[in-house]
Amino acid sequence: MICRVNLTRGTITTEPVPAAWQGLGGRALTSAIIAAEVPPTADPLGPANRLVLAPGLLGGTIASSSGRLSVGGKSPLTGGIKESNVGGLPGAALARLGVTALVVEGQAASGQWFTLEVTPAGVGLLDATHLVGQTIYETVARLRSGRSRRTAVLAIGPAGEMRLSAAAIGVTDLDGVPARHAARGGLGAVMGAKGLKAIVVDDSGSDPVPLADAGLFRQTTRRFAQALREHPSTGKSLPVYGTSVLVNVINELGGLPTRNFRSGVFEKAEHISGEALHDLIVARGGQTTHPCMPGCVIRCSNVFPDENGKEQTRGFEYESIVLLGANCGIGDLDVIARMNHLCDEYGLDTIETGDTLAVAMEAGLADFGDGERAIALIEEIGAGTPLGRVLGHGAAVTGRVFGVSHVPVVKGQGLSAYDPRALKGTGVTYATSPMGADHTAGNALPGTVLPGVGKLDTTQREHQVDLSRYLQKLAVIFDSVGLCWFTRGPILADNSLLLDMLKGRLGREFSMDDLWTMGRETLRRELAFNRAAGFGPQDDRLPDFFLTEPLPPRGLTFDIGDDELRETLAGLD
Amino acid sequence: MICRVNLTRGTITTEPVPAAWQGLGGRALTSAIIAAEVPPTADPLGPANRLVLAPGLLGGTIASSSGRLSVGGKSPLTGGIKESNVGGLPGAALARLGVTALVVEGQAASGQWFTLEVTPAGVGLLDATHLVGQTIYETVARLRSGRSRRTAVLAIGPAGEMRLSAAAIGVTDLDGVPARHAARGGLGAVMGAKGLKAIVVDDSGSDPVPLADAGLFRQTTRRFAQALREHPSTGKSLPVYGTSVLVNVINELGGLPTRNFRSGVFEKAEHISGEALHDLIVARGGQTTHPCMPGCVIRCSNVFPDENGKEQTRGFEYESIVLLGANCGIGDLDVIARMNHLCDEYGLDTIETGDTLAVAMEAGLADFGDGERAIALIEEIGAGTPLGRVLGHGAAVTGRVFGVSHVPVVKGQGLSAYDPRALKGTGVTYATSPMGADHTAGNALPGTVLPGVGKLDTTQREHQVDLSRYLQKLAVIFDSVGLCWFTRGPILADNSLLLDMLKGRLGREFSMDDLWTMGRETLRRELAFNRAAGFGPQDDRLPDFFLTEPLPPRGLTFDIGDDELRETLAGLD
Repeated sequence: MICRVNLTRGTITTEPVPAAWQGLGGRALTSAIIAAEVPPTADPLGPANRLVLAPGLLGGTIASSSGRLSVGGKSPLTGGIKESNVGGLPGAALARLGVTALVVEGQAASGQWFTLEVTPAGVGLLDATHLVGQTIYETVARLRSGRSRRTAVLAIGPAGEMRLSAAAIGVTDLDGVPARHAARGGLGAVMGAKGLKAIVVDDSGSDPVPLADAGLFRQTTRRFAQALREHPSTGKSLPVYGTSVLVNVINELGGLPTRNFRSGVFEKAEHISGEALHDLIVARGGQTTHPCMPGCVIRCSNVFPDENGKEQTRGFEYESIVLLGANCGIGDLDVIARMNHLCDEYGLDTIETGDTLAVAMEAGLADFGDGERAIALIEEIGAGTPLGRVLGHGAAVTGRVFGVSHVPVVKGQGLSAYDPRALKGTGVTYATSPMGADHTAGNALPGTVLPGVGKLDTTQREHQVDLSRYLQKLAVIFDSVGLCWFTRGPILADNSLLLDMLKGRLGREFSMDDLWTMGRETLRRELAFNRAAGFGPQDDRLPDFFLTEPLPPRGLTFDIGDDELRETLAGLD
Repeated sequence: MICRVNLTRGTITTEPVPAAWQGLGGRALTSAIIAAEVPPTADPLGPANRLVLAPGLLGGTIASSSGRLSVGGKSPLTGGIKESNVGGLPGAALARLGVTALVVEGQAASGQWFTLEVTPAGVGLLDATHLVGQTIYETVARLRSGRSRRTAVLAIGPAGEMRLSAAAIGVTDLDGVPARHAARGGLGAVMGAKGLKAIVVDDSGSDPVPLADAGLFRQTTRRFAQALREHPSTGKSLPVYGTSVLVNVINELGGLPTRNFRSGVFEKAEHISGEALHDLIVARGGQTTHPCMPGCVIRCSNVFPDENGKEQTRGFEYESIVLLGANCGIGDLDVIARMNHLCDEYGLDTIETGDTLAVAMEAGLADFGDGERAIALIEEIGAGTPLGRVLGHGAAVTGRVFGVSHVPVVKGQGLSAYDPRALKGTGVTYATSPMGADHTAGNALPGTVLPGVGKLDTTQREHQVDLSRYLQKLAVIFDSVGLCWFTRGPILADNSLLLDMLKGRLGREFSMDDLWTMGRETLRRELAFNRAAGFGPQDDRLPDFFLTEPLPPRGLTFDIGDDELRETLAGLD
């Protein structure tokens, strides 16, 4: 069912999934709903915008890594359509409660704040005035108190309340800790603008999701889990070192964003690498291997203790470590962990915040490498000082206000932790994705195979446009079925894993062609929304400095021209 | 000649006017040069942008009100092409020095600052490090010290040095006081980004501009002066009450921007009206009638003394008084005069600043009507605090940072002092002009005649699109010949005044058709630049609240639809 919550009127209604949206889940569904219901020129922080939550097609099942949740809306950061994808508990819980999509509409009166509760007993709005100003950790602790252990919470912190464009939505993991985030694109500000402080999803006592062919489904999920265990990435490196296993890889490639994207190699990379992180966590008795959702075979996340062994932060991932760390010249995991935790308390996208701090350093507000000053700047955001509000709106606004031109953004959104001069396929995705600069929209890591061509050298321009186009469609598929992107290795090796799970769950024969069509259609819809919102070909490019400033030490530039970039997704029309 | 100053290389070169630009002056010329030489996607604050100064075709002559100067560039406020038009001395002085256009290119090394000197002896760059941080008044006083009385200066203040998007370029009037401004679009920031603190233009000893037919020219300028004296606007109301004569007119119409465009009537309008201003100036021994350039018959400006009779500010005009005053709920001319003078010291557009302060008041940073707090906020801009830098980037950035949606901007630029719900033709100009919201691009005041139709009711939608189209072309003509817009009454009544002056000056027979063609071609060029810079139809509209919130007390809305707006200038293509 579609569940609609209208904050203007305080009403809650449910309706069956209309025919046009049947067979859609996750990003395919959030983007379809936004495109159909939000005027492209609407104020992202006004009542006409909608915040849409949709689990994937496999959400709520026992399949490993299948509980990803898509959160969609018009982004206050990019001004375009946005889907932000998050793990943790609520994706599966919503699916088990039969919620195909939760659509938050309207806007509460100024000063009014609500918590939305979704349980088997029904859906309701509760007053949340007592939670105003609280951090996400505080908010979640109060909302989970006295409830079932498996109660999932999505919440915003001060950043979302202040409607800052870098505001994230915090999401609880399987321990009830809000260490996962629908972080990109400022959707926390959309939630804040609606007057919604938190969403509580408690599926205790709900029925399991129905399976059209339980035998096929269980058999395939076992094959899938086995394949994940046997794959070198999901079976070995990710469970041991987590996402930070990439630090050394990308640093050796010369593409690790360092000091505001001015170098591709960080001299302290070994101090912040996955290996260093692993050893430090082990020495302090933390968890190097931690699943964000129950039943995940990969368990790529972690719990990071401080020097006294007390939990300092968790979900301490590659993007956060590189952008809050190397990109700010900071090579101390303890400092970066404190920065990461502050972002999680206030509800800030760590990627956007890392990009922003580096721009602020470029503007002279702090020295590169000065971790204590960086922490103080994040605290300014939480406190909502004028400086903090500037920083909380992200790298583009910060560069504008302080007169810095060297700002790594596309469509107003800060780049992820891959320099596009050394990772050109990812650069094409940054430039052309309707999501703005976002690695999750189609990340071309070293070793990625372009069908029919093979593995590409990420530093060379050849075939990168084709690779990005392929990956952008593939990302839609994974974000729509609800599977973690990390599961793509086994699934690309054996499509039947995915197709049989879909058949076992839904009773419908999907072909890969069907899924590619869903990817294409979704991108087409998103691009059309953005065009109607005012985006043109001039928005589909990287900042000039990536084209003109060779990246030390390898001297690479981004040499894929505007004409080629325009072709990337043009074929979809 | 075209004089090119390159700040990257420190070189100065001159060249004859190329054939393609002959017969162009003022805005027609600045826009042609920008369109030809600045990549539309260039960073407005980078070396690829250019700052172009061009007097009009009649510049430097004895014709009344003919010394207007066009200053062009890619705007850091709008991101589009910009022409900002200013009176005072330098337009005529550049023309007498034979400079058809002064093109400032490149960018000085960080921390380097220069003064450009243009004299009959040549053009040179002087070190200006000792002027850094000085206000415009201080800068001008130092640069004019020991020089000829008629030395003209253009200078930026701290706002331009900080590259703030609301930064103006201050320009000296005939007393050597920098009370005139190329204010709109942040061109002061472009000048600052180039490392250019000031331009000194001293035409002492230069020859008069050549006249192709001196007899015809002198005879026509006499007829023109006589016609200006006999016209009710330029002969009576403007010389007596100045531009503020409009306060009561627009207030009675219900279109006076009040408290962030939330009302069209200000209860203290009579305290800030042209009549009140006149009486106060007379009582204190100031000047109610003051020309910004020598030989102007209209003399619409003023010198405003404080309560002790000492000059407090000058060039105290309608737009400044309404936007710093009524729009901030401030009804005290002494307070508004102090605000106006601070803007002139720091080099801030008073229109953008007034819009911004009202948005800041809406955000709770000050109460509407709190003049002392408003002054303190302007001082923050001058001091370059984080809050000051936000405000100094204008209303759009301030609204974004502080989460205010009720922000009166088009293409990022704040509206002038006419509410588009009550002055719909001006509203069409705000929405569709390539300049962003700017009354100087085609202002449809009450009483304006649309040829073939007659005078329109400004509160009704009929014919307003046609009127705006007509006025936008007409504004280009006046800004290109170098005549003050206020002279249009006599010239529209008798075209031969303009055509014979052009013939007497240039020896070329212009027809009105030629001039209309220049207007059309210039707009077409500007629109094409903006399209290539990324503007689309979605940018040619007013903020939604003008369409949806009825304006008290008359309950008017802006009811001209997007489709009609798109037709306004579409016929030019």
